Amino acid sequence: MQTLSPTPRTTVTRGANRAVGERDRLLDLLADALTAHLGVVVTRDGATHPVVLPVAFAVDPDGPDEGGTLYLHGSTGAGWLRAALVSDVCVTVTELDGLVAARSAFSHSMNYRSAVVIGRARMVDDPAERRHALDLVVDHMIPGRSATLRASTRKELAATAVLALPLREASMKERAGGPVDEPEDVATGVWAGHIPLRRTALPPVSADDSHDDVPADVRLRADALA
Amino acid sequence: MQTLSPTPRTTVTRGANRAVGERDRLLDLLADALTAHLGVVVTRDGATHPVVLPVAFAVDPDGPDEGGTLYLHGSTGAGWLRAALVSDVCVTVTELDGLVAARSAFSHSMNYRSAVVIGRARMVDDPAERRHALDLVVDHMIPGRSATLRASTRKELAATAVLALPLREASMKERAGGPVDEPEDVATGVWAGHIPLRRTALPPVSADDSHDDVPADVRLRADALA
Repeated sequence: MQTLSPTPRTTVTRGANRAVGERDRLLDLLADALTAHLGVVVTRDGATHPVVLPVAFAVDPDGPDEGGTLYLHGSTGAGWLRAALVSDVCVTVTELDGLVAARSAFSHSMNYRSAVVIGRARMVDDPAERRHALDLVVDHMIPGRSATLRASTRKELAATAVLALPLREASMKERAGGPVDEPEDVATGVWAGHIPLRRTALPPVSADDSHDDVPADVRLRADALA
Repeated sequence: MQTLSPTPRTTVTRGANRAVGERDRLLDLLADALTAHLGVVVTRDGATHPVVLPVAFAVDPDGPDEGGTLYLHGSTGAGWLRAALVSDVCVTVTELDGLVAARSAFSHSMNYRSAVVIGRARMVDDPAERRHALDLVVDHMIPGRSATLRASTRKELAATAVLALPLREASMKERAGGPVDEPEDVATGVWAGHIPLRRTALPPVSADDSHDDVPADVRLRADALA
């Protein structure tokens, strides 16, 4: 079993009991999650501030970067792109698994799995790696779909930036199960527990300009998420 | 209808057709979402990098900050807290509503609602505002629950930091519906459409050390999310 080796930047300081050290668990979470939140540092008029945006992503555990590669893509005109290339970025992936209702406000919590990856993004220039990464992003949404699509045009590829982030500097936290209350609060007899949450899919909806013969990959994906 | 007045930092540059300008829509999204992603800028050894963490939050549209107040809370020992107070922060709230499968990889997309709030966080010191904010955070998870709980102890309050962020500098984007393909791709007869996604709750699970008489607020919340 490979273990994560966090640096000081990714060492879990609060709630260290919730830290997850196995790389396989990180990869499982990244496989489950559909979106990530990308954080970049923007400098404007000499002042810095963070910007956090939801992004699609994909992972190649055997990618060329240390620890494997997390791929992001975006429009070459996106405002965050320049910021993402001149300083380190943070990609955070969170799956919310439940609401935890304790006897005290203080012990209320949420069940979740969350991964934080920090590092310097690499602009992917190699045409083969770019195609591979973009296929992975489509297949992350709907496994198998990229093989059913026409090739991207030169114009589409020219409008698309692909970034690669090493998975080397990563940490993961998880909370699961019910509330943890103080014994004196348990003794009051107040109810406590949790509400499990999950993401579900409804059946695929065909586009107005499409026929209704939903392909197998899309049906499988919707069924798997249902 | 109040409109959002984004600054240059929160003006939607890419996909401006997806920008949402009504404050009520922003408040609706913030009411729906259960977690946010907080971005802070961390400086270590002279180098800056962003850190993005999932956080609970609550909103008081009539709070004391310009545009209303978004409240965050955390342990006074949390590593992000110091960073959150010495430079601006970004709070991003995203609800994923669907996977959009187009005829081309390029036109694949996701349906989502996402809000970005940027500003300087204020440490809340006033005891009454702190209690109000912490009640809002609990009630954001499970409406009505804070009124059923014992008061927080002095020790619990001392361990909890409450931050307030003005909702003034905010923007929102939304994508909904099916794919938008080029006419020549539609003409190929390839299927296209989308898979709607939603968050669902399973029935409440009583804690091992609790009786099974689930209170009305928790049942209502689970039913509303089911």
